[in-house]
Amino acid sequence: MYQPDDRLKKQMDFILEADKEKNITRQTYINDASRKETDAEHAFSLALMVSVLSEYSERPIDKLRTMEMVLIHDLVEIDAGDTYAYDNEGNLTKRERELAAAERIFNILPEDQAKYYRELWDEFEADETPEAQFAHTLDRTQPVMLNDLTDGKAWREHNVKAEQVFKRNEYTHRGSQKIWEYVKALFEENIDKGNIEK
Amino acid sequence: MYQPDDRLKKQMDFILEADKEKNITRQTYINDASRKETDAEHAFSLALMVSVLSEYSERPIDKLRTMEMVLIHDLVEIDAGDTYAYDNEGNLTKRERELAAAERIFNILPEDQAKYYRELWDEFEADETPEAQFAHTLDRTQPVMLNDLTDGKAWREHNVKAEQVFKRNEYTHRGSQKIWEYVKALFEENIDKGNIEK
Repeated sequence: MYQPDDRLKKQMDFILEADKEKNITRQTYINDASRKETDAEHAFSLALMVSVLSEYSERPIDKLRTMEMVLIHDLVEIDAGDTYAYDNEGNLTKRERELAAAERIFNILPEDQAKYYRELWDEFEADETPEAQFAHTLDRTQPVMLNDLTDGKAWREHNVKAEQVFKRNEYTHRGSQKIWEYVKALFEENIDKGNIEK
Repeated sequence: MYQPDDRLKKQMDFILEADKEKNITRQTYINDASRKETDAEHAFSLALMVSVLSEYSERPIDKLRTMEMVLIHDLVEIDAGDTYAYDNEGNLTKRERELAAAERIFNILPEDQAKYYRELWDEFEADETPEAQFAHTLDRTQPVMLNDLTDGKAWREHNVKAEQVFKRNEYTHRGSQKIWEYVKALFEENIDKGNIEK
């Protein structure tokens, strides 16, 4: 009987593990506000944004590496869950939960790949390289675009305040000044509309 | 008042248009069989598979180009809908519907990018380059992995037959002999289990 070799089996196990991102629901509503999006859907949007918007990165980036980074950046949520940006209590224990998750999930892969993706995730978390900073800018921008499109539904549900969104987006400009200007204008419009509390 | 320039506005409009892939449901169940996956989730899985499995491509590939190809390969379904692999009637008109969709959707982008992604989609459809053939191999493989994981739920619902799956996967080996052997073994196991009809 056919048996995949050990390397291929580990890789396929990892692909199936990553499928669990489809079971994790974020707080952001999709385009028609019919339901909230999943982590897998969020990662799809970010990867497409890397492809379309890379010209606006503040510093030159390796597009492939950035795309791989956004594809794996939320895998830790399979164990650690999605912590809403404005959930203060959840955010206190987030780092610890995510480190344990990274240890388990990336090690499903063969050793060389486990190391590659773990380093990529650590790089995202450290937020220092051009790739990580651009990825973070997109990670902050994508839910804002959907929130604006759905007339602030998620913001209103969570009574989100202007002070909170500006604090959370303190570094969004680092990855792209141009995209930050776009995001800031969306915030201002939604504050005017009352979708974000003054 | 802030107004994004014409180029950025077109790019952001395209990103929001692509969000509609989250409204398109495929026939494949996700890992825990709780629901069917969306086109956006399918594209996420394929992009991750390009990243993890590229070593098995029959010919060397440009990983970035292949990843971008799988990210945009189903955008046409926003207008044309998802045609189930074993829906003979739907497949008769599929090409025409998808061409009209490609014309509309890629042209939301600025001209240079509209051309870039349209050529990438045409390349996927023509299925001749190493990138397109590897992308097709993954596009065929991913639902088989999920079908196997969910004990053939979608296959059984559609009374799928062995003859059909082998016909549909006539060229899966072209992108990767190694991955095709893996897929073929999954078919054989599921025929034995009765999940695919003999």
